[in-house]
Amino acid sequence: MMISTNETHNPELRSWVASANADGTDFPIQNLPFGVFRRDGSVEAFRVGVAIGDQILDITAAQAKSVFTGDADTAALACCAPTLNAYMALGSHAWSALRLALSRALREGYALQSALSTCLVAQADAEFGVPAQIGDYTDFYTSVHHATNIGKLLRPDNPLLPNYKWIPIGYHGRSSSIGISGQELRRPVSQVMRPGATEPVLAASARMDYELEMGIFIGPGNALGEPVSMQQAEQHVFGMCLFNDWSARDVQGWEYQPLGPFLSKNFASTVSPWVVTMEALAPYRQAWTRIEGDPQPLPYLDSPELREQGAVGIELEVFILTAAMRAQGVAEHRLSHSNFRDAYWSVSQMVAHHTVNGCNLQPGDLLGSGTQSGPEADEAGSMMELSKGGKEAITLPNGEKRTFLEDGDTIIFRGGCQAAGAARIGFGEVRGALLPARSLA
Amino acid sequence: MMISTNETHNPELRSWVASANADGTDFPIQNLPFGVFRRDGSVEAFRVGVAIGDQILDITAAQAKSVFTGDADTAALACCAPTLNAYMALGSHAWSALRLALSRALREGYALQSALSTCLVAQADAEFGVPAQIGDYTDFYTSVHHATNIGKLLRPDNPLLPNYKWIPIGYHGRSSSIGISGQELRRPVSQVMRPGATEPVLAASARMDYELEMGIFIGPGNALGEPVSMQQAEQHVFGMCLFNDWSARDVQGWEYQPLGPFLSKNFASTVSPWVVTMEALAPYRQAWTRIEGDPQPLPYLDSPELREQGAVGIELEVFILTAAMRAQGVAEHRLSHSNFRDAYWSVSQMVAHHTVNGCNLQPGDLLGSGTQSGPEADEAGSMMELSKGGKEAITLPNGEKRTFLEDGDTIIFRGGCQAAGAARIGFGEVRGALLPARSLA
Repeated sequence: MMISTNETHNPELRSWVASANADGTDFPIQNLPFGVFRRDGSVEAFRVGVAIGDQILDITAAQAKSVFTGDADTAALACCAPTLNAYMALGSHAWSALRLALSRALREGYALQSALSTCLVAQADAEFGVPAQIGDYTDFYTSVHHATNIGKLLRPDNPLLPNYKWIPIGYHGRSSSIGISGQELRRPVSQVMRPGATEPVLAASARMDYELEMGIFIGPGNALGEPVSMQQAEQHVFGMCLFNDWSARDVQGWEYQPLGPFLSKNFASTVSPWVVTMEALAPYRQAWTRIEGDPQPLPYLDSPELREQGAVGIELEVFILTAAMRAQGVAEHRLSHSNFRDAYWSVSQMVAHHTVNGCNLQPGDLLGSGTQSGPEADEAGSMMELSKGGKEAITLPNGEKRTFLEDGDTIIFRGGCQAAGAARIGFGEVRGALLPARSLA
Repeated sequence: MMISTNETHNPELRSWVASANADGTDFPIQNLPFGVFRRDGSVEAFRVGVAIGDQILDITAAQAKSVFTGDADTAALACCAPTLNAYMALGSHAWSALRLALSRALREGYALQSALSTCLVAQADAEFGVPAQIGDYTDFYTSVHHATNIGKLLRPDNPLLPNYKWIPIGYHGRSSSIGISGQELRRPVSQVMRPGATEPVLAASARMDYELEMGIFIGPGNALGEPVSMQQAEQHVFGMCLFNDWSARDVQGWEYQPLGPFLSKNFASTVSPWVVTMEALAPYRQAWTRIEGDPQPLPYLDSPELREQGAVGIELEVFILTAAMRAQGVAEHRLSHSNFRDAYWSVSQMVAHHTVNGCNLQPGDLLGSGTQSGPEADEAGSMMELSKGGKEAITLPNGEKRTFLEDGDTIIFRGGCQAAGAARIGFGEVRGALLPARSLA
């Protein structure tokens, strides 16, 4: 699929929602990401909303005001639900129709502005939900820099396994424990084998980590037995969010052979509230290339569209805010940054590989990109990498040191896209805080 | 939890449904397993049913006839749905109430027999569905014999990894591709590295296998962050079925490092229609023991109830029916047999381990037991083991040979329980057929 930019990407567009025109907003009118929200503190059902500046446009309310017509109205009707699954299932024709209608309705000069303005809710007054009912969650491992960094810690002589450059490595994760930004998670207790010990013990993890990932929401599914080609792959992708795949490294080290991570990962993962659509990401697409000397992908993982614009430029940042920093009034500290364009495997390759054996994806399924580390030392997407497996402590601006996460630490990811001739758009943030472990008494 | 047998287990009970009293039936009145069905060929919604002899009691129809009262009626109302999820969520008090009411209503001499008899549907006229909407599926690896057999093929000097006897090893699988008995699956196409090759290729799997497993359906869930103790574990288990976790061994060998099986497993798994409840399994419980010299389980994986009756005696059998056998009118051939009592880790240990880190289970979640192989050579639960990794072909009665599965092969699992002083109950069967791969042209 060739993604073309259209009038909704015009950087000159301004919205009648003033905050959408502010410098540095993540949510200008060129973005229009989807999420689900309700008034903070209420117990009402979640509703689908679109971010515009510091506001949310309540799609159900807007639809009821007959703001949309034709295909856009049909698409908006699918948004009258507590999750995005039905809308995700509709596919790119419907998504484009609603995006265009939203772009026009939110532009300066829109005739029904006063009616539509009653459908706005301030983001500050909202609580967010997980955007979709996630049937299956698959985590990939698409950063060769992360795979190499981790591999060096485990196998110094042979950091990258022979399959890495041929297969977009992935494995199935846990859907039930995926939460929304703001999630507070207890430090998990599990079985670990401590260094030098001869018998394992049940203990709180001593090597708690985050993983800087992109989350990829599936749109229309494929039937069981019917693979999705590279050419069709992005037609099955609704959009992307920020994703923290919390990890307990000591648990992982003891449990993961031979069948992969289990309790080290399934206690919590956190998504950001806003899903930026693939159409909104069109201006930030880049050529996808292989590192000189690396194998070219097998034909089922290759396409002209991949070569031309298979990568997506998304600048990613990780921040930490410790309990002491919070008490001292110190601002959050940036631990690292990276860019999703450096992923070794593309979104389309993840989808094509996942389905080549006939495995069926369903609307609302989530793919994790795997930890996004870049080529430089300050581009590591996990504490495990930053602290060289816990051997080199990181010093924070207030003098605190970290090898892994401590109780009370909040981790924040932010992300955004910039390109010549395009507006800057952002992903908002995903935030999560580590609470002390439950008592083992 | 101590499971006590009660009047519903009395082997003297006879049903007014004559086929339930026949020798060798899997579904005497002491069983009463749950499933979902509809009339074969119809497009109506699935309905919850209970197997009795060669019939199905339609619970929705029976409830409408006011057959049930009190807690049993409340439980039956939760069965007026297309899946068992709502009923599974109710827990053991409700399950026991409905089981007792069903047992009494289906016994010889029941006053409303003629009214209830109109709620029967012949199993031969029914089509079955997957009993629950499965949110998350986790596969364990509880047979030490299977782990050792497979380990010997991969690592002759060190077949069992050091964690095996400490951790009930498990990993997350794919929910979307789980189908019901009768499933016909295409031989999957995926990336494989052929022996001696230097580059992988996309190809149909040449090493297709089945895995003889039990499926374990979760009842009431646990909240995220709240572990389930060994004492409470079986209160969270609704029942068990037969489960075939189809596997592509060549795909698995190339892809599974370092994050575990992915495309080698996620193209299809098949469950049997009938879920035998934990209460029905009570008479077949056995003491759980550790092999002499093996480590004792950590306290969070141990309990007096485990020691007394943590195991479940379930005789399991695998049959093959090839296309040639079918054409020749030859009966299916038994490839192997084993017994679930030989599992190294119990159902309660799977639940307690899965949740010790706070991971939340939900009603309808499925746990696979892992391949159930016994200590003897003819007790191997997969072709990989029977053929010694493809090196020793199995000769079938009609002269055909097999190392792995061929197109047109049907694999059938059957299972049943016997104990002194108890009726024999069975699981019915799970059946699946391998179709040729899709064209790679």
